[in-house]
Parts: sequence; C-alpha cells; structure tokens
Amino acid sequence: MSLTVVGSIAFDAVKTPFGERERMLGGAAVHFSLAASFFTQVRPVGPVGDDFGPEQLAVLEQRGILTDGIERVAGGKSFFWRGRYEYDLNVAHTEDTQLGVFAEFEPKLSESAKAADTLFLANIQPDLQRQVRAQCEAGFSGLDSMNLWIETAKESLQAAIAEVDCLVVNDAEIRQLTGESNLARAARAVMELGPRAVIAKQGEYGAALFTESSFFALPGFPLEEVRDPTGAGDSFAGGFFGYLDGTDGDLDESQLRRAMGYGTVLASFNVEEFGTERVSRLTREEIDDRFESLRRMTQFDALPA
Amino acid sequence: MSLTVVGSIAFDAVKTPFGERERMLGGAAVHFSLAASFFTQVRPVGPVGDDFGPEQLAVLEQRGILTDGIERVAGGKSFFWRGRYEYDLNVAHTEDTQLGVFAEFEPKLSESAKAADTLFLANIQPDLQRQVRAQCEAGFSGLDSMNLWIETAKESLQAAIAEVDCLVVNDAEIRQLTGESNLARAARAVMELGPRAVIAKQGEYGAALFTESSFFALPGFPLEEVRDPTGAGDSFAGGFFGYLDGTDGDLDESQLRRAMGYGTVLASFNVEEFGTERVSRLTREEIDDRFESLRRMTQFDALPA
Repeated sequence: MSLTVVGSIAFDAVKTPFGERERMLGGAAVHFSLAASFFTQVRPVGPVGDDFGPEQLAVLEQRGILTDGIERVAGGKSFFWRGRYEYDLNVAHTEDTQLGVFAEFEPKLSESAKAADTLFLANIQPDLQRQVRAQCEAGFSGLDSMNLWIETAKESLQAAIAEVDCLVVNDAEIRQLTGESNLARAARAVMELGPRAVIAKQGEYGAALFTESSFFALPGFPLEEVRDPTGAGDSFAGGFFGYLDGTDGDLDESQLRRAMGYGTVLASFNVEEFGTERVSRLTREEIDDRFESLRRMTQFDALPA
Repeated sequence: MSLTVVGSIAFDAVKTPFGERERMLGGAAVHFSLAASFFTQVRPVGPVGDDFGPEQLAVLEQRGILTDGIERVAGGKSFFWRGRYEYDLNVAHTEDTQLGVFAEFEPKLSESAKAADTLFLANIQPDLQRQVRAQCEAGFSGLDSMNLWIETAKESLQAAIAEVDCLVVNDAEIRQLTGESNLARAARAVMELGPRAVIAKQGEYGAALFTESSFFALPGFPLEEVRDPTGAGDSFAGGFFGYLDGTDGDLDESQLRRAMGYGTVLASFNVEEFGTERVSRLTREEIDDRFESLRRMTQFDALPA
C-alpha cells in the first residue's frame, strides 16, 4: 500500500487568540502526509526553496514519510502563507500569500510516486491536478480545491473532479461549485460529474459523506482547547485517505465510515496546537483511543423491537 | 405522563424561494406541541386573539393536543410574525413582529397544567418563563431563548436557566450567553448555572448534547427538499421533550440520545413543507422509520479487536 499526495509544502505565519508562530512548517501536503503516516507509506510531491532545510525534513522523516518527491528548487523560496484567526476561530483572514517556487511548479512524478495505490490531489490549480492525475494510475483518488478555482478556473476544476473517485471540499464550496444551495442535491450534482463519493467538510460541525446510495455524518470531535485550525481539513483528508490506503480489503461503506472517523480524529489532534506540533508527536494508540471515544459519542440505541 | 409547554401561538407569514404563505398557524408552542403529540399528552399554554378560530384549533385537536391552556383574549389579536428566507435557507430575515395579546401575557397555569411531569418554556421573556417555572413542579424542565433576551435581559435569563434541567438554544446563543467562543467550554459554563444538560441546536448541521460526563451529536437529517425552516427548532424540542415525557424510566444517557434522534426526525419533517402542513399529517410509523434511517446514517463499526 502506498499513497502519493501532491500539494503545497510551505511555511506558515499564524496568529490566533491563543498564540502566534512567525514561521512554521505547513502546507496541505505536509498536514496530509503527517496524518496519513500513521496508517500507510505516504509520499508528498511538491516544490520547496532553499529555505526548506534539514529541520523541516526531519519533521517528515521521523514519521517515516518518504521525502524523495520533494523537489528542491535552487535559488527559490518556499510557498508562504500568513493568516490570522478571530476569537471565533471559524473566522480566518489571509494576510499574505507568496507562491514562491509554486508559481513555476510543473509536476513530474517519479516511477515510485506514479505507482501509488492511492492518489490525493491537494488544493492546487486544477490543471496541475489533472497533469498529476494523468501520470498516476492509482486505484483510488481524491481531490480538494477552494473557492478561488471555482471562481477562476471552473471548467478545469470540473474536468479534474470528473477524474477522481472522491471529492473532499468545504460544504460552502460544494454549493458554490454546483450552484445548488441544498447540500444533498449539490453532492448528487458532483457525483454526476464522476466521483462516487463526496465529502463535505463542515469545520467544527464535522464532515458528511455522500455516496450514490448512502449518507453518513460525524460531528467534529469536541475539544475545549483549540489553538490553531490551520491544516485541519488537510489532516482530515490525510486520516481518511491514509486509513483507506492502509486497508487491504474493498473500500466498502464500513471502511469509508471508519475512514471518516480517522479523518475526524486526526483533524482534532491537529487543531490542539500550532502547525504540526501536536500531530508530529502523536501515537497510534492516542489516535485509536480517540477513535473509540468518537464512536461512543455518536452511537445511539435502536428502539426496542 | 404529561407535558406543559408555554410559548407563542401565532400566525406566520413566510416567504421562501420555494413558495409563500400569507397567514398560517405557527408559533413555538404550536410547533412544539405538534411534534410532542406523537409521544405524550401535551398541553400548550399561551394567549390568542379573536382571530384564532376553529380551523386553527382543529389542527391541534386532531393530534390529540389538549387546548384548555390556550387563553382567548376578547378583542385581541394573536401574535404575528412575518419573515422571509434567502435562497440559502440558513439566512432568515424578520420583516414584522406584532406581539398582539402576547404583550399583556400574565401566565397563570391551571391545576392540570401545573401537574405536568415535564415542562418546556419556549422562547418568551425570561421573567415570564420564571413565573411559569415557579407554578409548575415538573420533574424535568427545559428552556429555549434567543439573542434578544441575552442582549436585553441577561440576568433574568440566567436566573431562568438556573431553574431548569435542560437548556435548548442555538449554538451561537450559547456562545453569546457565556462570552465563550469554544462551544464545549460554553456548554460547561451553562451547566455551572444549573442545568444538567445543554443542547446546542446547529441548524442544518444538527444538534449536540452536552452533559457533565458526556457528549453526543447528531447531524441534521439530509433532505433534498426543504421548503420552510420556520419552527424547526421548536419541532426538535417537541420531539426531544415529548419522547422523554412519554418514557416511563429514568432519563439516562441512552434515553437522552434517543430523544435527540426523535428531535432531529421531527425537525426534519417540519421543514419539508410550510408551517404545520407536514407534521399535522405525519404518522408515528413514518417517524420511527426515519429514526431508524438516522441511526443507520450515524453508526460506524469499532475496530477489529
């Protein structure tokens, strides 16, 4: 089992009411890979600049993440994002985005990256997502995106979505993409493009999974301490696709639901501290304990027969 | 088993992208009572004007609702609300509110209303809620409120909350009431006032139940047709308290969770059509079928041992 993820490998400057960090390891492919690393062999693919050093590499390598897909661009600078969150952590403001080496990114997958069983296309320009998809025959694939691409590259995005098995985006983006305010109808409209599953990320409210024949939803794991929401969605996706890639069997409904559980759990650990701080020292035992807690928080008894 | 609910009995004018009604039966106590009527004997208490006629009464009576607590004020007009919803049904605008006979409401409970096992104080001025609470020795009680009272009568509201077992409000109101943006902490702050349970209504995202020792959450039931969200929260509360009042046993965690399920189901039926149209012709069999569907949509398997 192996998983390739293409997306940003970045430095983030983040300020929340609970602290701030001026320059920490971040990016979708990083959060995804750390979350997935508890379940399978994961290989992030993306460019970095000269500023990406041994310290950053070590965060990934100590989790067993394969780093041979990280392309170092001499003389370049890594993707940089600066954002702040209000006291209500659901409200985020982007203050700066510097694409750096990402502006010239031309994804070329190595033979190993191409041979992955599972492919995740994190949020990048949809034509780049399609270039990657065309290089990788993975049996199961997923895609994330954002409002920017819905507004500026909708047709490309629709074409990219048509080529994957599972779309994972915020619920507002599913509505925006389809022009349908009812989420169940909007998810059905996405499945008509191609995917057989649609995951609506709902922030603190959790996530919902739509397939042609089923619906499943989980709340966010309740936390009294949330310090930095950055990367929660990528950690969710990493837990979800990582778990699925790590299983041998069919991706049936039961496995998809467990994967939703792991996605929820990894997202919850991610937001407890800044950046990668919490997930990089997490253990599988802590993950499984929280998975079982989540299960207990969502089960209720049938009526007496 | 019997349940008293105090709150508005009203006429609503509602416009949504899917239709409009100029003058239909509404009000919190009406939606609550209809939902609760599938589980127990329910008695709404509140004033109406001369405009409240046999047609409105019949909607309640055909569901077996006890109407002797509805106080007819000669020469008065019933509470009236006019609102419209945007294409995104989560966005509502109040265009007119006429208190009518509600402006002079002095709740006096009959002996039967006082003797109820369960009491629900729907959203009215908190001093009125306290007057009612003082008259009724119900073993289990709940309270709803709104941002207006948090802003204009916060101390009264806190005193009213201290006197009930279960607070049922929107999640934003729990945050506003406690000044705490983290929902888990905010719920704990409410429990420190007195209640042993707090339900955060979350609109289409469902509802979450906090107790001192547990957390439970359910998504909204997924619907492809939502025509009018008015009364969803009251229908939720009616299903929740109605089910609990209708059970003989202790209100343990298992029963509270089932009650959350029934609340979710009744809210979902309520929004499928305008006003009371859907719930007034609902059957218990339809309710139980959807309850079981909801259970199937929220369960996932433990990990293999």
